[in-house]
Amino acid sequence: MNPTKLNWRVVLVRPRNPLNIGAAARSLANFGLKEMAVVAPFEPTWKEARTSAVGAGTVMAHARSVPDLIDAIGDSTVVIGTTTGARRKLDRDLLPLPELAAELRRRRARGSAALLFGSEKTGLGNDDLSHCHLLVRIPTSSDCPSMNLGQAVAVCVYELERAGLVEAKKTPNSTSRRLEIATAQSLEHLFERAEHVLEMSGYLQPLSREAMLLKLRQHLLDLKLSSRGARILGGVLAQVEWKLQNPSPANC
Amino acid sequence: MNPTKLNWRVVLVRPRNPLNIGAAARSLANFGLKEMAVVAPFEPTWKEARTSAVGAGTVMAHARSVPDLIDAIGDSTVVIGTTTGARRKLDRDLLPLPELAAELRRRRARGSAALLFGSEKTGLGNDDLSHCHLLVRIPTSSDCPSMNLGQAVAVCVYELERAGLVEAKKTPNSTSRRLEIATAQSLEHLFERAEHVLEMSGYLQPLSREAMLLKLRQHLLDLKLSSRGARILGGVLAQVEWKLQNPSPANC
Repeated sequence: MNPTKLNWRVVLVRPRNPLNIGAAARSLANFGLKEMAVVAPFEPTWKEARTSAVGAGTVMAHARSVPDLIDAIGDSTVVIGTTTGARRKLDRDLLPLPELAAELRRRRARGSAALLFGSEKTGLGNDDLSHCHLLVRIPTSSDCPSMNLGQAVAVCVYELERAGLVEAKKTPNSTSRRLEIATAQSLEHLFERAEHVLEMSGYLQPLSREAMLLKLRQHLLDLKLSSRGARILGGVLAQVEWKLQNPSPANC
Repeated sequence: MNPTKLNWRVVLVRPRNPLNIGAAARSLANFGLKEMAVVAPFEPTWKEARTSAVGAGTVMAHARSVPDLIDAIGDSTVVIGTTTGARRKLDRDLLPLPELAAELRRRRARGSAALLFGSEKTGLGNDDLSHCHLLVRIPTSSDCPSMNLGQAVAVCVYELERAGLVEAKKTPNSTSRRLEIATAQSLEHLFERAEHVLEMSGYLQPLSREAMLLKLRQHLLDLKLSSRGARILGGVLAQVEWKLQNPSPANC
């Protein structure tokens, strides 16, 4: 079977311990991954992180710190969240990590993939999870489900490499391929437009608003839009938005 | 296929950083392993180790510190060393970690297995390696082959669990099974007797002595002796030893 190869980026969302940032970078370098982004409310202490990033100079040099998750995953075509599933009730399927490769092949995933890890203390939040096409779970014991962040990253990137999912280098036609699938950034624009339309139409109720928006984003991901599909849907929403803002005089 | 399940013990040989001992313990607990031993010239600072052993209270409570490797692997029937293979020229095959399960099944391994990790700085030494039936290599990139110790342990125990190699609990007949295969301790006794016999017979030369003994131990492991076979060979060697110590008068 032709293996699914993707350009991977590991995204650490609000990590607390700079040593874990460095340890994560080291395991990326161990398994041939190059891109790491850190979503943090403040610039991470890269100096401290570097002490544990032995041999991962290139990864650290190119690591980015961004204020929001969307900045880290904007150009990704598939976003995968990691979770123990222990802390909150999820109404979504958790894919065991060893089955990730088969699932990505089934979905014919291609382009750029982002793999998200939450903070040591709380994991990924509901808003982070709503950006994810897939949720994976490292099959840890129920007696001790929560892994050290650096070790969790190492296990995941080992599995990516083991399953032949790591693109050695960008393919020559990666740009044209990327155009085919809607990126997380373009879907986020679509989502914001849809939110605005629902807002203006009076659909969103104060009490259920937040949960409703998380579900909306999830449904949008489930559509698996092409970038052309995203442009068309964006056009439709823009038209509806315009009409809502410029209503025809009643009964004309 | 009937899976090969083994009772695993992770052995850290002369680790330098107590945080790595704790991180290793945590990953054992994450994947349902219970036994850890630390071979160290001095008692590890368990207190420091405990700070990184989140959730691994049981593993830490039962972890043992022993002065010599043989104390840690004495009752094991299969000993597996981990190495990047980068630091020294090895004349032995390195098995990629993802192929370990198939190899253990091929060998019909059973009983108790020890998985060895060397120190952060130097890995396992030649003497440590000579105790190993198998050497495995985590398939890291040649650009950055050396992993953080805690992450290397996490990746290996993840693979053991992934491949269905972890015995959930000791089987009722584990004692009788253990009797079938020669333990590392009984092979070590055999090795010492063989060394003594070679010594007395004048076979060992000062310059090649050390290398010769490492090879001898390796050949002994390759025989895959049953415990009965080990007893028989031990008896033969004892007889030869006695004869060498009590030579018949010449030409009688």
